[in-house]
Amino acid sequence: MKKFLLIPDSFKGTMSSSEICTIMKNSINKHFPEASTISIPVADGGEGSVDAFLEAVGGKKIVCKANGPLGEEMDSFYGILTNNIAVIEMASCAGLPLMGDNLDPENTNTFGVGQLINHAILSGCKKIIIGLGGSCTNDAGCGAAAACGTKFYDENGNEFVPCGKTLDRIAYFDTSELENKFKDIEIITMCDIDNPFYGPSGAAYVFSPQKGANESIVKDLDEKMQKLAKIIYQVKGIDVQTIPGSGAAGGMGGGMATFFSSSLQMGIETVLDTVDFDNLLKDTDLVLTGEGKMDTQSLRGKVVIGVAGRAKKQNIPVVAIVGDIGPDIEEAYDLGLCGVFSTNRIAAPWSVAKLRAKDDMKLTVDNLIRFLKRIR
Amino acid sequence: MKKFLLIPDSFKGTMSSSEICTIMKNSINKHFPEASTISIPVADGGEGSVDAFLEAVGGKKIVCKANGPLGEEMDSFYGILTNNIAVIEMASCAGLPLMGDNLDPENTNTFGVGQLINHAILSGCKKIIIGLGGSCTNDAGCGAAAACGTKFYDENGNEFVPCGKTLDRIAYFDTSELENKFKDIEIITMCDIDNPFYGPSGAAYVFSPQKGANESIVKDLDEKMQKLAKIIYQVKGIDVQTIPGSGAAGGMGGGMATFFSSSLQMGIETVLDTVDFDNLLKDTDLVLTGEGKMDTQSLRGKVVIGVAGRAKKQNIPVVAIVGDIGPDIEEAYDLGLCGVFSTNRIAAPWSVAKLRAKDDMKLTVDNLIRFLKRIR
Repeated sequence: MKKFLLIPDSFKGTMSSSEICTIMKNSINKHFPEASTISIPVADGGEGSVDAFLEAVGGKKIVCKANGPLGEEMDSFYGILTNNIAVIEMASCAGLPLMGDNLDPENTNTFGVGQLINHAILSGCKKIIIGLGGSCTNDAGCGAAAACGTKFYDENGNEFVPCGKTLDRIAYFDTSELENKFKDIEIITMCDIDNPFYGPSGAAYVFSPQKGANESIVKDLDEKMQKLAKIIYQVKGIDVQTIPGSGAAGGMGGGMATFFSSSLQMGIETVLDTVDFDNLLKDTDLVLTGEGKMDTQSLRGKVVIGVAGRAKKQNIPVVAIVGDIGPDIEEAYDLGLCGVFSTNRIAAPWSVAKLRAKDDMKLTVDNLIRFLKRIR
Repeated sequence: MKKFLLIPDSFKGTMSSSEICTIMKNSINKHFPEASTISIPVADGGEGSVDAFLEAVGGKKIVCKANGPLGEEMDSFYGILTNNIAVIEMASCAGLPLMGDNLDPENTNTFGVGQLINHAILSGCKKIIIGLGGSCTNDAGCGAAAACGTKFYDENGNEFVPCGKTLDRIAYFDTSELENKFKDIEIITMCDIDNPFYGPSGAAYVFSPQKGANESIVKDLDEKMQKLAKIIYQVKGIDVQTIPGSGAAGGMGGGMATFFSSSLQMGIETVLDTVDFDNLLKDTDLVLTGEGKMDTQSLRGKVVIGVAGRAKKQNIPVVAIVGDIGPDIEEAYDLGLCGVFSTNRIAAPWSVAKLRAKDDMKLTVDNLIRFLKRIR
């Protein structure tokens, strides 16, 4: 075996995708010293996504000023990959950790994310990937849109930059300047969740509590999201509520789709496109992927199955190393996997298993690679 | 892949070796319909050993009269394999379940086992395998020896048949008749434990409590075993205490070694010899073995490593499907295993894992066979 592609998802709570790549690579180097490995740490759009893309594709990390969640200037960053694609993780200037214990989904916004987008455009990038996830905001991406030229007006015609609690002040907005600026720019938003803009499964009810909203704030934010949805429909003719994922990241999903005309795309598909995965697959003997838990939900387009689908088209075998294997995952074989191996080596609860996760990963990968070497 | 050998140990408490063979065979038939499989359920000497040998080699089950543990006549059985080797499991007429709740290690003996040996010899068998394990006796095999012609005398020269509590009555014994009868007969005793004849690790202290002995009976039985060891030394010049496994099955290990001049052999080695494993290995593409737990102790000659050792000599790959994988088992690869796969598919304690053991075995085997099919 001469060429391995390594593209595991992170194991939530125990190992990053990059760490798993390293474990896999070390084992392959040991047992197949002549083989080449290509590591593709998988970005999920959240914190660490820029680093993951830079590691997978190469490029440079751009450090620049941008507004933080409450408008204060801060050092932020994004990545420009060697293929001139910019990668922005919204968490870099609208992330939860930036707020410490003072979470405030009503007054924070995503203005800084828009500034990073502007910076990328000025740097000459024609394609920009926006990673959602880990946000402290509930501003439906209005802040970012405002930074990029969208004008938001209240009912008196006064322009303002919205945040979560002022979404209901928006009476009208004008995207013409933004549209003009972005006419040659492709924006892809990484979004792995299906939540709608508002309602019981919407941005406010599902995600704002972890951003500091109490019951009455949740209700209030949700009503304001509903009101904004009406304005969006009046101005753009788009029913944002029907866009799967419009409720992601405090409504940033919906904002990207409506203000920026961005497509919302499964994160793994974005990664696979960006790294030119189909091309990397050529001459590959085996693809190693994985995720913390493989279950029937995994079969609906998460990392492992996304990878398997691409590889299947070229008839390249794919093995998944996973934490837990849920019931009824046999369809995974039809979807392109030739093997699913669990890292669980002893009967022990999660409280024990997580402490030994890295060692178990090492030993499980090592066993598989040894086996491959002997059996091929 | 055209030929598979299936030789798993039982998974204590969840699956017999034979059940695991069936699971493996079904999966192979499904994914490699052209391949042949040879199932070798592994006998451990205890209950079920005769059936396991008959399933592995073929032959007939002989039902005959023999004394039960308290001397009552009962229907017992043994096996005569197609290669004319007799297989006797001592549990068939000296087994714990025969005593129900009336366990009595002082008054029970193994006379019936000797009668089965006699029956096998009269049936023309020249090689006899005795499986230890699951016994209710602590008679050091004196009962069996008596049935086969050994004369036991008390200090007054009266002949008697010993049981556990009368071992100290033995002042002298004469094996000449037995020796004469057995001069062309090979007796192999399956014994996987190392316990000595007497003392803190001996038959009485370690095993008689589960046979119903209270503290004072344990002490008494142990003293009587010590006394017998002295008599054995006086008569035969053999220090039975130094024979590893002489304390197995209420001292039956020591009795087989001294009264019958039987070798005590690892169970798996006996199985491998009896099924002519080295010959079966020819043209085999893969050996599947396994055990409930693989740990550093497993590396000292239990089923998996016993199998791997034989296969390694012929360079045939061996895979182990095991329940738990303990730490520091990497030496197993050097000893002939090319892969060790755990049946644990989720992080869950044993109380949960055991309930799903069969399903997990099926899915784990199925995954491995699918993988083999795709990767070879």
